[in-house]
Amino acid sequence: MVILNQNTVTEHIQHKRFEQLRSMLLDCNAVDIALLLRDIPAEDRALAFRLLPKGLAVQVFEHMEPDQQHQLLEAFTTDTARDLVMGMSPDDRAALLDEVPASVASRLVRLLSPRERKVTLELLGYEEGTAGRLMTPYFVGLRDDMTVGQALERIRRMAHDRETIYYAYVVDGERHLLGAVSLKDLVLTHDDTRISEMMTTSPKYVMTYTDQEDAARLLQDYDLLAVPVVDSENRLVGIVTWDDLADVMEEEATEDIYRYGAVEVPEEGYFRASLLNVARRRVVWLFLLIAVNTVTGSIIAGQSDLLQEVVILAAFVPLLIGTGGNVGAQSSTVEISGLATGEVGGGRAAFIVGRELAVGLLLGALLGLLVVAWAYLLGRELRVAIIVGVTLLAISSMAAMVGGALPFVFRVFKIDPAMVSAPFITTVMDIFGVTLYFLIAHLLLRL
Amino acid sequence: MVILNQNTVTEHIQHKRFEQLRSMLLDCNAVDIALLLRDIPAEDRALAFRLLPKGLAVQVFEHMEPDQQHQLLEAFTTDTARDLVMGMSPDDRAALLDEVPASVASRLVRLLSPRERKVTLELLGYEEGTAGRLMTPYFVGLRDDMTVGQALERIRRMAHDRETIYYAYVVDGERHLLGAVSLKDLVLTHDDTRISEMMTTSPKYVMTYTDQEDAARLLQDYDLLAVPVVDSENRLVGIVTWDDLADVMEEEATEDIYRYGAVEVPEEGYFRASLLNVARRRVVWLFLLIAVNTVTGSIIAGQSDLLQEVVILAAFVPLLIGTGGNVGAQSSTVEISGLATGEVGGGRAAFIVGRELAVGLLLGALLGLLVVAWAYLLGRELRVAIIVGVTLLAISSMAAMVGGALPFVFRVFKIDPAMVSAPFITTVMDIFGVTLYFLIAHLLLRL
Repeated sequence: MVILNQNTVTEHIQHKRFEQLRSMLLDCNAVDIALLLRDIPAEDRALAFRLLPKGLAVQVFEHMEPDQQHQLLEAFTTDTARDLVMGMSPDDRAALLDEVPASVASRLVRLLSPRERKVTLELLGYEEGTAGRLMTPYFVGLRDDMTVGQALERIRRMAHDRETIYYAYVVDGERHLLGAVSLKDLVLTHDDTRISEMMTTSPKYVMTYTDQEDAARLLQDYDLLAVPVVDSENRLVGIVTWDDLADVMEEEATEDIYRYGAVEVPEEGYFRASLLNVARRRVVWLFLLIAVNTVTGSIIAGQSDLLQEVVILAAFVPLLIGTGGNVGAQSSTVEISGLATGEVGGGRAAFIVGRELAVGLLLGALLGLLVVAWAYLLGRELRVAIIVGVTLLAISSMAAMVGGALPFVFRVFKIDPAMVSAPFITTVMDIFGVTLYFLIAHLLLRL
Repeated sequence: MVILNQNTVTEHIQHKRFEQLRSMLLDCNAVDIALLLRDIPAEDRALAFRLLPKGLAVQVFEHMEPDQQHQLLEAFTTDTARDLVMGMSPDDRAALLDEVPASVASRLVRLLSPRERKVTLELLGYEEGTAGRLMTPYFVGLRDDMTVGQALERIRRMAHDRETIYYAYVVDGERHLLGAVSLKDLVLTHDDTRISEMMTTSPKYVMTYTDQEDAARLLQDYDLLAVPVVDSENRLVGIVTWDDLADVMEEEATEDIYRYGAVEVPEEGYFRASLLNVARRRVVWLFLLIAVNTVTGSIIAGQSDLLQEVVILAAFVPLLIGTGGNVGAQSSTVEISGLATGEVGGGRAAFIVGRELAVGLLLGALLGLLVVAWAYLLGRELRVAIIVGVTLLAISSMAAMVGGALPFVFRVFKIDPAMVSAPFITTVMDIFGVTLYFLIAHLLLRL
């Protein structure tokens, strides 16, 4: 396995050793070349790319990101650009056209053959993030009155331009989806058997408007390599293959993690976005959180008299609200992830929130005892130490309950539970925390 | 598509309508049956399971979780248990044996045929979480001097018990890995062509000890359906297929999210673990975080005189340290996720942390202005309002820098960057926050 090194490539280009670079590239996998070209300067990229023979160039091109594809196309003649864009699979091509400016897109569409143009424009008609946008219309279709031998013959004839030949789909005269067969089953069945006798009837399918995440989950749950996509009349219009859906799974996981950190993902990816764009994606959340947090300020400001009297109370605020935030973050993490993987259903919400409350009480009791000891050592005032311990118990239970319940509450109001971010929970618990603290302090100091 | 309903199943069982239940189950997909059985009481599960014909029973069994497989096996006769365990693929069987008590495991191993016993014990020899543990030894092996026609014939003959036939691997007499061919390429090539002329030489592969996450990434990056696994002498010992790796990807994503919320995942899954076990998995982190947070208490306690004098200062503590935590959580989220997906390399650490600092300054300046206005309205003291604004600017920059840098620092010390959880960042920023606040307050109040 030849591992390409981006420094070697840049050096070869600087010293104009194009023949050496070319033979180096020819030894490599298309994906490796794409990964390498991603990280070198744009001029070098176009230069290196020109060295590739046409077939390999098309493969490498398809594995690049849309913005770099666009840059490359601008650097090439119309003929080369046509070859590259024609060589892409329809779903990748739709993703590219969606990315480039409208004028470029319409110029690229004009380069396509009438058939490819029709196919591409159809895909672009589906919303981003749906199965319709991800699918390819190049699947293997069979009739149910064919024999296995005929089906294998047909697959062999069609294989060269099909996205996958490992599944074939059986349709009637109006293209309604009737069944599915795997190449493995075909190979294991006698040539004279009719497809209708051996196909899986009522195979799993998705609609064109099915969310790409749901399509990915279906593929994963049923160990499929591809899933057929049908329109509202149950006509087979395409298939989504597992390689597209693996990317979707990763994308969605990243999105969930970002959301949990209260960052909106810029379209071009965080690390390639401009500084201002990044700040814009973060400031909205921060501003909202600060607005919410002004409540804590008002509450504490209203307790000036108490604080003037027992100033040591102020020392425990960060620890108390911090622990509330931490317990809340733990509980919400678990519920959000459970809802996302389907491990937790809405039906068991009451049970699960109750269980979180029990966990919160247990944690609060354990940690509260420790904190009482520490608070007494720091302040040498037993009543303050007791106030701090009781507050910790109360905050911990409340945080576990609120953190566990919020994802469900969001879902009831049709908001994505993943919007319950760690910073959001922390901020909510700041308010509950100071409220509980001063409430308990007033109650116990009056004893 | 028949959607099974768990209430219907329970009802059928209660009224002993076994024939109806049986014909209902026969209409369903094995995966759906497994999902359904997962959620009904254990006695009903065994009852319903007994109704399945042998072939379907084996398939359903394989899609269940190890602990439920174990329960079922205990309920059956030795003969049925043998059929079920023999019907599993070796990697799933290894996962089951790893889960059950040692006495049960050795009893189950004795049920196996000598060949299956050998294969299973070999897999158990590899560490959990490695490619060796996930692989199946049932792949299609070819010789490079075969013709395509001979290869297709061999594949057809072997297909019934191979995990996948869509890739075949070419080995020499000592089982060294020489190349790979896809069934698609075989189908597209003339029958008389030699395998050596059309195979992919130096295919991507993993070692038996390769981390399962790395194997999954390889599959995804190169759009493969399976990847060969070789031992330290480069001998082909098995293949890992995409369905196992899709589960790995989901598992690892869940683990990352849990870690980011500072929860250790109990082995049996959070929602099936006992209350005490769950509390145990959370209390360690909480305790550590509280221990760290006692520092803030000591700092504030040391500032009693200042607070007695300007008591309104205490009102802004939650907002200031909260914003620090939020900015830090955002920055660390982005870096952890970038490191996990490989989007960010260690080489660019300085650049990336610098960029975070710039973002933090920008955010701090924007939010600081707003906060000055609010602080003045609340306290009617201009100097306090200015202290709060300046602190916010300082905290925001520092939080972005610390949050952005910590994942890299962890990596330098060979700690998984995913250990930088939101609660950890929040707690660290609590300390920095109060320190900066009182420092700035002293400086500005002395003016």
